[in-house]
Order: sequence, then C-alpha cells, then structure tokens
Amino acid sequence: MNDLSTRLHPFDIATRLEPLGEGRSVGATSPHYWNMAGPFGGATAALMLRAVLDHPQRRGRPAALTVNFCGAVAEGEFEIAVRLVRDGRSTQHWQVEMTQGDRGVATTASVVTGAARETWSHEAQAAPVVPPPAEVASMDLTGRTGWTRAYDMRFVEGEPAWAGRLPELRPAKSVAWVRDAPERPLDYVSLAALSDSFFIKVLQVRGDVPPVATVSLSTYFLADEAEVAAQGVRHLLGVCDARAFRHGFNDQSGELWSADGQLLAVTSQVVWWKE
Amino acid sequence: MNDLSTRLHPFDIATRLEPLGEGRSVGATSPHYWNMAGPFGGATAALMLRAVLDHPQRRGRPAALTVNFCGAVAEGEFEIAVRLVRDGRSTQHWQVEMTQGDRGVATTASVVTGAARETWSHEAQAAPVVPPPAEVASMDLTGRTGWTRAYDMRFVEGEPAWAGRLPELRPAKSVAWVRDAPERPLDYVSLAALSDSFFIKVLQVRGDVPPVATVSLSTYFLADEAEVAAQGVRHLLGVCDARAFRHGFNDQSGELWSADGQLLAVTSQVVWWKE
Repeated sequence: MNDLSTRLHPFDIATRLEPLGEGRSVGATSPHYWNMAGPFGGATAALMLRAVLDHPQRRGRPAALTVNFCGAVAEGEFEIAVRLVRDGRSTQHWQVEMTQGDRGVATTASVVTGAARETWSHEAQAAPVVPPPAEVASMDLTGRTGWTRAYDMRFVEGEPAWAGRLPELRPAKSVAWVRDAPERPLDYVSLAALSDSFFIKVLQVRGDVPPVATVSLSTYFLADEAEVAAQGVRHLLGVCDARAFRHGFNDQSGELWSADGQLLAVTSQVVWWKE
Repeated sequence: MNDLSTRLHPFDIATRLEPLGEGRSVGATSPHYWNMAGPFGGATAALMLRAVLDHPQRRGRPAALTVNFCGAVAEGEFEIAVRLVRDGRSTQHWQVEMTQGDRGVATTASVVTGAARETWSHEAQAAPVVPPPAEVASMDLTGRTGWTRAYDMRFVEGEPAWAGRLPELRPAKSVAWVRDAPERPLDYVSLAALSDSFFIKVLQVRGDVPPVATVSLSTYFLADEAEVAAQGVRHLLGVCDARAFRHGFNDQSGELWSADGQLLAVTSQVVWWKE
C-alpha cells in the first residue's frame, strides 16, 4: 500500500532538519536540488531559514534573510548552528552557520524575524501585467537536471537559450511564472528557495555558463503568514534583472509576486563568475 | 597655527578605529553623523567595513556588505570584532560584530572581499540622464541636523518635504546628486556610508517621520579600486526607490552612479517603522 498523504514533498526532504539541541541541527543534501557543483543555493537558503524558524525561542515571521555562500557544500550531511544575537520587542536577530565536519564553514546567514503587525500599507508599484500561467508554456526540461526540474517555470520574457555564446548580447530582464514541481503550498521556507530560482544572468545575457556562484543573497519578506498561505500552490510571478557585469561580479535583483498581484518578497544577490 | 593639511575630515574621525589586536578595535560615535536616536546607519555600515579593510589578513576589495542593525547604538565608545570565516582563492568571507560593554550586540555585518580581476564586462543599464550637479540646487539645510548636514544633496526628483502627513501620497522614487560635505575623495568606506544616505521612503511618500529604523542593509560594490578612486570628490548620482509598505516594513533599493555614468554600487535595505 502506498499512502500518498504520508509521502513527503522532495522540498521537505531536502530541507529536513533533525534537532541536536542548543540551536544545532543536522540535515543532508538532496539529489532533487543538486546544481552543477553543489546543492542549489535556494535549497541552502531555505535550510538556513528553516533552522531559525524551528528554533524554540523564535517569535514572529521572517522579515529579512541574508545568505553568504562561503565555500562548496559537499554531497552528504551538514550541521547548522543557530544563535539568537539580539532579542528585541519588535524584531529578533539571528546568526546561522552551516558546517561539514572539518571542512570549515560552508555557509553563513543572518535572519531577522518580526512580530505580526497591522499598519498603514501602500503598494508603491503594481505587479506587471502578463498572461496568466495557463496561457504560457512551461520551459522545456529536456537536458535539464537537478534543481531546475524541481520548478515549473513559464517564461513570459527572458528565457535562457543554453545555446553557448550568443552572437549578440540579450537583455538581462526576465519575467516568468514559477512554482514547485510537484505542487506544494507556499511557505516562507519555499519562498526563500524561490528567491534564488532565477537563472544566472550571465547565461541569459551571454548564452553560456561560466564557472559561477552566488556569493551573497538577501531576501526581504513583505508578506505576513496569511498572505503567504493565501498563495497556496499557484504560480508566483518572478521578475528579475541585472544592472552591471564587471570585474567578475554582477548584481541581480528580483521580485516575487503572488498570483493575486501582491508583492510577497524582494531579493538581491551578487554573483561571482570566472571570466 | 592651524595646519589644515593635518586636520581630519569629520567622516574619518567618525570612522576612526584603534586596533586592539586579534581582529578587535575600538571607536566612538560622532556628533557629525548623529541621527534621531543613534548614529547615522551609514556611519555604522562604514565602520563595519573599515574594520574588515583594516584587518591584516584582508586581501582584495569589498564585493558585498550586509549590515544588520540589531539594537540601538548609544553615544560613546564601541568595540568591533572581526572574524575571517572563510579564506578562499577568489573571495574572503568576514563576520563582524559591534558591541558596547554589557549592552549586548548592537550591530552585525558580513563582508565579502574579492580579488582584483579583469573580465568580460557589460553594462546592462545606463545611468539616468539628468542635469549636471552645477545646475541643480542643493537641498536647503535649514532645520536639518546631524548626518544630513554631512552631505551635499541636490535633488533632481523626490526631495522630501518634511511637511507632515501629506494630503496625497507621493512617488517613492528619488534621484539626487550627493557627495560628502565638506568634500572628500571617495573610497569604499564612504561609498558604504552613501549607500544608506537616501532619506527614508515613508517620509518621502507620506510626508511624516514615524519611529523608523533600517533593519538590514546590503550593498554590492561593482567598482574596482581604480574606478572608486577616479570619482574623486565629485558628486555621485543616487537613485532610490521602494516597492511596498506593509506590516510595518518596506523595501528600499538604490544605485550609486559615478560622475562619469558608471554604476559603482547597488544597495537594498528593509526598513522597520511603527505605524
């Protein structure tokens, strides 16, 4: 007998943490979220956030997450240690470190959680007007492996070609519907992973994939618990752009809009590449 | 006799650090960079970066800086402790903590430094076309105090009114020429401070200043040493915008363009406000 209701989603397997006490926990990399030379950065970001959300002293919902990808994460087990740096009335500040035995620190993160509050609100920008996901074709996954198969992506604009160095540079902007594949109700942990689900901009602009790695990623969560839950399993609209590629680094900034046109999170990262 | 050549710029006084050994140093807050309830966040960001740049093991130039403003910094002395988390071939990862006696951790930061490299480069976006600084009036400093007097700001768009709650909300975008006042040749440390020199977007949009604080700030440095030095004492063009104000937080993202139209740094932050 195969009880579907008790089977975990691959994302929940990839971000599973076993508590060891005193803010420490252990997890393991997942083949479902593997990237070229290590785990998908979004899965690592999600783990760093989950470690904080699982902490017994944590109050409120995430407001900010910064992940620094310090070194390669090897296939296998890792340990995550969480420290409450400052416990304020309106915010808590957390520091997180991922290690693998004597290989040193692989990843650091800082997380800010904030108390649930109703305040004045104002949407200074509106969601882009695009065709609904049902009217946009899913990206062809032929030849794709690892984490790219863990998302259904429907590009309205800026789908990368994987064609090798292009004769002419393309625009850096991308607009795409995206959701977990298979479907999974959105939560902050999956939103953290989605904030790193944009294809690298060197690929989009230039057509090839050099040795490349996200160095630092910051995501700000603008949605409260109810707004995240209201998204359910629907596609989010991801908008992403880059401004400059210079001295082996480029910036990247993104937005994640709900199916109802609400800005759930904004994200930015700096990306290292070889040449 | 008053030898001008030996007098330090107020910014260098505000970001002066005395080494204590083992990555620790001591500094003190400056009235020149005071804000409403503590030091100007940009001065704190600059100090966190300077502490890393001063470290004897530091190689390369800053690529990324994230500052988490955990708690109030009181007037007076503080200590900054720097730790080299990971020393890689192409990047170094640093962790920084600012404390004041037994008041706990006031500020944390992560810094990534990167080796100088010449690579493929591409400017995916161009600087906005605006009148030169000489043709734009400086912001009236009447009634302004502290850090706002430490910058010459010339608004092309989005100057705040400080008029109290406005009858109609204004756009969040601002475009302004900005430089240190008095003049000071640009370096990474002052660029870090400038990345927090945009006025809070609640003020610009709504007209009033609620209890407000930057929670987390990330700046990515796209310019190398030579490009930063080439800016000299000229005005930078600062472009800044916000997308959503909700549940007591808003995002903010900015660009700092050189006088020659080159993108020197991009920055983003999440801001807490009371109501």
